Parts: sequence; structure tokens; C-alpha cells
Amino acid sequence: MKIKYELLKSEKHTKARHGILHTNHGSFETPMFMPVGTQATVKTLSPEELKEMGSGVILSNTYHLWLRPGEDVVDHAGGLHTFMNYDGPILTDSGGFQVFSLAEKKNITEEGVLFKSHINGEKLLLTPEKSIEIQNKLDSDIAMSFDECIPYPASYEYAKASTERTLRWARRGKEAHKNEHQSLFGIVQGGEYSDLRAISAKETVKIGFDGYSIGGTSVGEDKPTMYQMIEDGICYLPEDKPRYLMGVGDPIDILEGVERGVDMFDCVLPTRIARHGNAFTHRGKINLKNAKFKEDFTPLEETCTCYACRHYTKAYIRHLIIAGETFGARLLSIHNLQFLIHLTEDIRSSIDTDTFLTFKEKFLKDYTKE
Amino acid sequence: MKIKYELLKSEKHTKARHGILHTNHGSFETPMFMPVGTQATVKTLSPEELKEMGSGVILSNTYHLWLRPGEDVVDHAGGLHTFMNYDGPILTDSGGFQVFSLAEKKNITEEGVLFKSHINGEKLLLTPEKSIEIQNKLDSDIAMSFDECIPYPASYEYAKASTERTLRWARRGKEAHKNEHQSLFGIVQGGEYSDLRAISAKETVKIGFDGYSIGGTSVGEDKPTMYQMIEDGICYLPEDKPRYLMGVGDPIDILEGVERGVDMFDCVLPTRIARHGNAFTHRGKINLKNAKFKEDFTPLEETCTCYACRHYTKAYIRHLIIAGETFGARLLSIHNLQFLIHLTEDIRSSIDTDTFLTFKEKFLKDYTKE
Repeated sequence: MKIKYELLKSEKHTKARHGILHTNHGSFETPMFMPVGTQATVKTLSPEELKEMGSGVILSNTYHLWLRPGEDVVDHAGGLHTFMNYDGPILTDSGGFQVFSLAEKKNITEEGVLFKSHINGEKLLLTPEKSIEIQNKLDSDIAMSFDECIPYPASYEYAKASTERTLRWARRGKEAHKNEHQSLFGIVQGGEYSDLRAISAKETVKIGFDGYSIGGTSVGEDKPTMYQMIEDGICYLPEDKPRYLMGVGDPIDILEGVERGVDMFDCVLPTRIARHGNAFTHRGKINLKNAKFKEDFTPLEETCTCYACRHYTKAYIRHLIIAGETFGARLLSIHNLQFLIHLTEDIRSSIDTDTFLTFKEKFLKDYTKE
Repeated sequence: MKIKYELLKSEKHTKARHGILHTNHGSFETPMFMPVGTQATVKTLSPEELKEMGSGVILSNTYHLWLRPGEDVVDHAGGLHTFMNYDGPILTDSGGFQVFSLAEKKNITEEGVLFKSHINGEKLLLTPEKSIEIQNKLDSDIAMSFDECIPYPASYEYAKASTERTLRWARRGKEAHKNEHQSLFGIVQGGEYSDLRAISAKETVKIGFDGYSIGGTSVGEDKPTMYQMIEDGICYLPEDKPRYLMGVGDPIDILEGVERGVDMFDCVLPTRIARHGNAFTHRGKINLKNAKFKEDFTPLEETCTCYACRHYTKAYIRHLIIAGETFGARLLSIHNLQFLIHLTEDIRSSIDTDTFLTFKEKFLKDYTKE
């Protein structure tokens, strides 16, 4: 069965929408933040911990799993859900972004991308067909088309040629897609150019996918440009399909994305900053390494219901982070992921009552206060 | 309240004994293996995970907590139990072993040990009084006397002088001990010399402690020497107090220790080897990095009931270890600790039925088969 998106409520004053996405591994409401499990594990966490924090869907990375342990191992295990013991919905990316950001000495041709593995330097070729074949074997609920993530800034000529090639790759990927239990998303590119974003969105929709991603943001552009990139493409996407803004997980950007009609978000930010001792709070990010927390025997946030806040103090988590103990990263990862997941939950409530803008204003006022 | 040891059953054919130790934070049966939480956390694990695997008591390190976060922070938090959210029994060591194994440029005098911190090179002095003062503030259930861990080999003269000094330190520590909720153990030293072990045991018992530790083993000596060191001192220890063999956690050594009358064991081995990809099994240790486990979709042990074995395969754990994901170390830590804790559980059953030697023989036959 393919996924099915159900629109529950459109907010009156914005493009924000509350929906529900049905998959073969359960349903989740949108807008939703998706924790990232790059290597078939959300760093430091168990599947039970992800469920407890209300995680509806997770993302895993095709590029990493292709290199290690290899898609055949995952296939022989019975697919990614069985391999990693996660029975909820899983989305896989196409590997495109990782090839562009991690791989060495890449060479982009019409066929695909020739590059060297960031692990062992091995020469590898990733094509639209190969990306889909790997994802078919991983057997995620939602797969992504193979695309080029255009750098920022990029010349108009480069962006145009790349966007057109990504469209050809999208057609090839759809053609190659053979897993009937798996849904496939197209990706809107176009760099920083409004007309290219429009062309990319319209043509990708013409090919026809189960959902649409907005790619190529969060690559160095300023915030207004990023929000413009979203707007330039999203207006051409169909109402009855989910929209996913790739690689975005800053609380402010989630709010800006939702306001423009985005349903799904993912980012390594909450777990990455956790490993460096940072915690999201409603009054902005705090860094536990700060000396002022040395004898702070209160939780990260008094009002938070996460496992970390129910049982541990800032002073203890600070000690763990400074001592290099991974249990500290685990506690902060739980807190940060739950923070974003609960943020999307609060956003959904505000959409239901047509008070999204009031909610957003209140959140931003507190979050940016200090 | 001080701890209270209750002898439940002496095994008919050996010195093995099944007992129960009552503390202010609950009771646990002995023989028992104690997971090590060096820096107020058993690496990668939560207190809930420790409870689920049947952990009766954990150990934490005075030296590490003195340096980071400092005993005053733990004291102000309300003691170690509150600080780390662990409401079961906690034992702290004296810092002696760490000063001798970790610290740089140490200088031993009658007063104590002058050394440089392994973290920042700061000059520090650890004395018997200071060690007890720190442990009083940590507020563990069981504290240890400050001792010198004699290197192996050592000359008779050095061992004799050191053993006598450790006895003087034991008297000073007992004198300095002010926490009436905390019990205090004396430590038998004496190096590799039978007569010094006997003197150390008899004199330490004369001082009078709530329990007795056997120190200075597992420092490079061969196994027969280690077992002899245990025998040379343990025969002088009172029946009505618990005996703790410090720093020993190899399954074979646990069996040999129990046979000689030891009640408590601790070691970083199960969690340390976990981080390097090793798992205990009843057929010996296995290393998950081995290529033969690449597509092994069975648990670490079919008969094991631990969280890792209930939900994950060797192939998945292998992938996590090779990819450097801490969830792999977490799963193997859970398995290895439960393995040793369940081993002591099985040992207790065999003591109850006077079949310890049969149990030991069967275990060793399987464990050393491959």
C-alpha cells in the first residue's frame, strides 16, 4: 500500500495545515518533525525512547547504509524496520545530499555522480536507478528521488542545468522504482532562482509522486532567501500530497515552514547539538557547559515531561557532558527531539483553532528573548 | 543504619556462600557482580536499564568524582543517589587504585599520595582522611578505606612497608569516618606474599570494619598467584561480614573467587569490552567485528533474556559497532552486565543445592570450548 495523506484542517490566516499521513507502519499527524537515524539508529537512542517522546516517523540515510552495512545485508535481514527493530514509519533520503556534502572528488555526469567514499576512498557511482534500487531493498515506507543539491550561491546557468538534470533523474528514478509497498517523493530544486523553483515544482508534479520534498535549502543562504525558496516552489504542489522540507530543524525555521504549508521536517540538529551539550528550551538554546549550571539542581525545563527532565538536573547533565559520558548526550538528545516533536504538536493544536500566528509570535518572543 | 550481612547458605563442598546484604537503599543477594559507574554513570546506560538486568548494587569512583564534578557538587545535590538518580545501593572505592593507575608523578608519603591530576595536571594530595571525607560527602552506602595497591611484582621489603602503611591508613580512615548512614570496608593488601596477606587480614579485622575487601589482585600476576592471594587473606576474615574482591570481573575469576568465599565483585571489563565490540556468551567471548557475523540474524545468545537479545541481531549490533554508533556499545553493555549478574544468580542457586563445583565445571567446559 502507498501512503495516503488526509488534510484535517487548513489554518484560516496562513497556509499552515494539519493533516495525517497513513503508512504501512502506522499513521502520524503533520506538521511533524522526524528524528534522523543516519546509520539505522537515532544516535544514542532506542526505538522505545523514540516512541515515548511521541516520534511519529524517522529518517534514515541511503548513502550511509549503502556504504555500511550494505543494502543487501538490510534486505536479507528483512528490511530496515526489522534490521533496526523499529516498527513505525521510516523515510529514506536518496543519498544525493550526502554525496554532495560528504563524498570526496565528485564528478557529476548525466548518468549520475562518480565519487570517492568518505570511509575508505573507494570509487563509487550513484545514479537515480541505483539510489532507488538501494531504497527498494531498504524497504522504507517513503523513498526519495535522486537529486542534485545545488550549492549556494550558484550561477543561474549552473542552477538551470542542474535543475533540468534533476528532473530527468526524477523521471528515471520513478521508472526504476519497483517496490509497491514503498511510496516515492519527488524533490523540488532550482537553487535561489524563483523561476527555476517554479519550473522544478511544476515539472516534478507532472511526473507524479506520492509526495513532494523541497530540497536545496539550509545550504548557506540567509533566512529570507530560504523562506523565499520555499514559497517559490510550494505554491505549485498539490493540496492532497504531503510536503517535506529537507534538512530543516531549527525551531524558528519549522514555524516559518509550517506557515508556508510544509508538513514534514527533519534535521540532525537536535541530536548533534545534544552531543555538544546544548539543549532547546522555550527561552532559547542553553549550553550545559556554562559554569552557571554547575550547581543548578533543576531540570532543563520545569514544564518539560521528557525522561531527562523528569529525572535529571542540569548539574548532573553538565557533569556527564564535561566528563565525556554518552549518557549525557542521550539525555539531551531525548530532550531536544521531544522539544521539536512537541513543538509540532503545539503547532497542530494552533492550526485547529486558527491561532497559528498568535502561537508563533508567542513562541518566538520567548525563544529569542535572551 | 549500617549494612547487615546475613549468611543464608554455606555450600557443602567449598567455601562458597549465599548471603544477603541489607543496606539503606535496599538489599541484594551475594555472590553479586557490581556494574561500575566510574563517573556517576554506568557508561551508556540508564538506572532503569540497570534495574531491568537485575543489578543489585553499583560502584562509583571517588577519585573521578573528586576531580569532576567535585564532591561538594554531589553533596549539594543531596548525595550520589540523588545526583545520578539511582536509588539502589552504591559502593564507592577509596580512590587509591586510581591514584596509582591513572595519576601522573605520584609521590607516596606517610601522609598520603601527592600526584598530578590525569585531567589537568593539577597537583593534588589524597590522604586517608581526605578519601573518607570525600566519600562521606558522596554519601554512598559503602565506603572503602584508602590503601596502596602494591604493584606486581614488588620486593618483600616494599610490600611489607606498604602493607604496614596501609594498616596505619586504615586506622586513620576509620577515625576520620563521620557518616553514620555509611558503612566502611577495610582492605586486605600484602602483595604476593602469604605472610603479609595474613598479617594484613588479621590486623585489618582487629581495627574492625563493616566488611572486608581483597585488594591488589589483577595487577599483572598470573591466575594461580591471584587465587593464592585471595586464599592467603580470606581465611582470616569473619564469617558475618561481606568479602569483596576488588576489580575482578572475568567469569572464570568470579567462579574461582566464589569458591574461595568471596561475596562481591566489580570490574569495568563488561562495559569496556562492549565498547570494543565484544560479547560474553556461554561458549566464550565473541567479537562482533568478525566478518562471520555480517549476516548473522540471530541474537548474541538464543537463551539470553536481556533487552539486546530480545530485540536485536548480531548483524545489527555488528553494524552499529563498526559504524561507531554508541547504541551498539549500549546493547553490548546491557548484555555483558546481565551475563555476569545472571552468572552470580546461577552461582547462588548452585550454592543452595550444594552443586557449585558441578555448576563451575559445566560452565568452564562450555566457556573455554572454542
